[in-house]
Amino acid sequence: MTTNAAHHMTPDEFRRYGRALIDWIADYYEQVEKYPVLSQVQPGDIRAQLPAEPPQQGEDFEAMLKDVNDIILPGVTHWQSPNFFAYFPTGASFPSILGDLLSSGFGVQGMLWATSPAATELETHVLDWLATMLGLPTKFLSSETGGGVIQDSASSASLTALLAARERATGFATRERGLRSNLVAYTSSQAHSSLEKAAMIAGLGSKNLRPIEVDETFALRPDALARQIAEDRAAGLIPAFVCATIGTTSSNAIDPVREIGEICQREDIWLHVDAAMSGTAALCPEFRWTHDGLELADSYCFNPHKWMFTNFDADAFYVADRASLINALSVLPEYLKNQATQSGAVIDYRDWQIPLGRRFRALKLWFVIRHYGVEGLQHHIRRHVELAQQFAAWVEEDERFELMAPAPLNLVCFRHKAGDAFNQALLERLNAGGELYLTHTKLNGAYTLRMSIGQEQTEARHVARAWEKIRETATKMGE
Amino acid sequence: MTTNAAHHMTPDEFRRYGRALIDWIADYYEQVEKYPVLSQVQPGDIRAQLPAEPPQQGEDFEAMLKDVNDIILPGVTHWQSPNFFAYFPTGASFPSILGDLLSSGFGVQGMLWATSPAATELETHVLDWLATMLGLPTKFLSSETGGGVIQDSASSASLTALLAARERATGFATRERGLRSNLVAYTSSQAHSSLEKAAMIAGLGSKNLRPIEVDETFALRPDALARQIAEDRAAGLIPAFVCATIGTTSSNAIDPVREIGEICQREDIWLHVDAAMSGTAALCPEFRWTHDGLELADSYCFNPHKWMFTNFDADAFYVADRASLINALSVLPEYLKNQATQSGAVIDYRDWQIPLGRRFRALKLWFVIRHYGVEGLQHHIRRHVELAQQFAAWVEEDERFELMAPAPLNLVCFRHKAGDAFNQALLERLNAGGELYLTHTKLNGAYTLRMSIGQEQTEARHVARAWEKIRETATKMGE
Repeated sequence: MTTNAAHHMTPDEFRRYGRALIDWIADYYEQVEKYPVLSQVQPGDIRAQLPAEPPQQGEDFEAMLKDVNDIILPGVTHWQSPNFFAYFPTGASFPSILGDLLSSGFGVQGMLWATSPAATELETHVLDWLATMLGLPTKFLSSETGGGVIQDSASSASLTALLAARERATGFATRERGLRSNLVAYTSSQAHSSLEKAAMIAGLGSKNLRPIEVDETFALRPDALARQIAEDRAAGLIPAFVCATIGTTSSNAIDPVREIGEICQREDIWLHVDAAMSGTAALCPEFRWTHDGLELADSYCFNPHKWMFTNFDADAFYVADRASLINALSVLPEYLKNQATQSGAVIDYRDWQIPLGRRFRALKLWFVIRHYGVEGLQHHIRRHVELAQQFAAWVEEDERFELMAPAPLNLVCFRHKAGDAFNQALLERLNAGGELYLTHTKLNGAYTLRMSIGQEQTEARHVARAWEKIRETATKMGE
Repeated sequence: MTTNAAHHMTPDEFRRYGRALIDWIADYYEQVEKYPVLSQVQPGDIRAQLPAEPPQQGEDFEAMLKDVNDIILPGVTHWQSPNFFAYFPTGASFPSILGDLLSSGFGVQGMLWATSPAATELETHVLDWLATMLGLPTKFLSSETGGGVIQDSASSASLTALLAARERATGFATRERGLRSNLVAYTSSQAHSSLEKAAMIAGLGSKNLRPIEVDETFALRPDALARQIAEDRAAGLIPAFVCATIGTTSSNAIDPVREIGEICQREDIWLHVDAAMSGTAALCPEFRWTHDGLELADSYCFNPHKWMFTNFDADAFYVADRASLINALSVLPEYLKNQATQSGAVIDYRDWQIPLGRRFRALKLWFVIRHYGVEGLQHHIRRHVELAQQFAAWVEEDERFELMAPAPLNLVCFRHKAGDAFNQALLERLNAGGELYLTHTKLNGAYTLRMSIGQEQTEARHVARAWEKIRETATKMGE
């Protein structure tokens, strides 16, 4: 117990506890495979073990670490387990943890160039690197008319893109006078729920986000999009924003960006491309077909914090015309004015995002890219795609199961032929067993299991064991 | 150079590099006082030292750490220096860095209770602790009708509050049909620019955020607010949202929350209270007068990442009626459905914020509160207020200088009597010297220096030396 109320942790104490925590994390990754992937606690279990009142006097670090082991750990779902096949992966890797640690250590606010020039310049630089690594059109580079910025998530990137589109469609007047026009936005019926949320937040309303029908691969149908736009124009509405998805959350469907982009160009509509998970695939030239037509987009995002071994939060958001973004979002009160901003020679990222404050998140991306190198990252992406393709082949070979959608990359949608109730029960039983964690979706109304492969430590043996477990469990359930 | 493209950093390598980085951070804090507080680099200096192309092969961690020293460090503005008196503080402390490191290590997504129950339950618990520690009205507790959530920033908290207000004022119909009503919002002319940005984003438009005039202490005038509301109602507009500030960014003015709250109750307007920096003062009973009337508020936020030694990002946002917030923001696609959510027995924090994804940020708050204890935190807050009051007394004693606003807590607004140009030159000279870092504002049109005291390591000697330096520099400038 710390009895001196004035006590700050000293650098020497930090060295000791920091080393202990580094060891704890290393141990955790060595053992993570042994834990039940999905936490097995019940609602309220964690809180019931925590003292109702905060401590009046300070406590020792050892006591906290003990509670992490005894109370917190059982309540954690192990996203970093190699047997985590749910949702989409949330990348973490040791280099990214170290980059994030350094960011915490510096503790700077990168809201303006002036408040830490290295935070802004490293971010611009690393996002230019990433654009090159993915083969993005050059207009997205900071040396051209565009540029990249780190957002917390693809949700925030989509909202930011929608706000820029809203302003461009209304002559940048909505930001001042409020939304007075009947703007309409479009995305496929399979797009992420964050688009609906963005339409709500930006004041368009979810009814004015048109869910466009999809083809048999669950990809947006350009003819349906064109038809809906024409209908809306005829009704006096103003089409302002389209979001195409490269790799939908449900089934990893790849929207035809080129055909959608041609419509957007013709109709003067902002095209945002959401490649939150699958954008990382473009690191490999053989998967760049997924990004065909991207030169027609106004904005683009993908999440290194999903499939690129960079821990949350790190969404890479690009715009082709940074002036549109800045004109949509900038505000400059007196207390933020400074010489560098007024010179116009620098980027102030506060104008590229919704919040004002920001961490030095470029460090972790820099560490990840330098640790793996382009070839290392490509290696792991290829490996994950191969594992998923192997899994899809196994599903196809087993007559009890069926694939429910194409599996172009690292997500396999499948189900047992015994129907919705059976598949739901199968999922619950698998997850309760703790050996793996899967989640579901519905495709054409059918309850569908999703096998999502992208955790750094996932190897062939984990995928093989998962398939074995799925088959065994189905057999035990009597089918 | 790592030649094997398949290479992940091993746990043993992580132990080695992690320890080196922990030591690096400990060294940094031991030496931070020696660095020029405001980075002295010019635009482009950092990027010019970085390779134009990303590495094809992986690199060693030692090479990265060397570049951190040689390239990044000179481009950092040292927010953690005890001589950082600019803006508001951005808290960091060793316990919070460790909590954040553990969060990075777990790498969980806390978007749903089910995706890591401990992340949600610890957050709810620690935010209840904080509400008690600050003496907030009990309606903000999760055990009552309200509850707290960690947002990235007060900007996002204000926007979230405005969205809930917008929905409540329109029968929760705007989220679906779009903004069709002439809603109006109110805040003082001294409020943070994030309110203007929130009004832009939510579609109200910045013109419909009324800047209400302030009294001689720069606090919002309730009579002026009441008058503006009446005018707007007479014009057929719908007053929907008021933001009162406890501790404005310019001068730390304290708006009269009780009188404002009475108006809001009478008029049925959502009252949000933004105490981003000064909320922490309520840890000490003697400073709770700043929060008088808070029981009349619908939402409240303060930033432990400012003055409570918790590194960015950690804004504590509370609502009195959590149903309003959830009804404004929830969306539930099939792939996020799960038993716990459908049981209604758990909190899913994705519905309490704009993005979907979220880090396990409660860990760092938990570590900070437990390390310091309530008494330790109170001790440091009192110390900072004392240092600021001492500084204000010195300003008053020196006939060359004058105070420009009341200094109720830890921010002192002052200037040299020689006029705007002199004060601007004085600020630039002080900051270029590197021994301290101050920023400015304008109060009643006058260029004003801000002395903001709240860094963990700031002691009496730093404040005394800053005052000496300010006086010396003014003398050298010939006055």
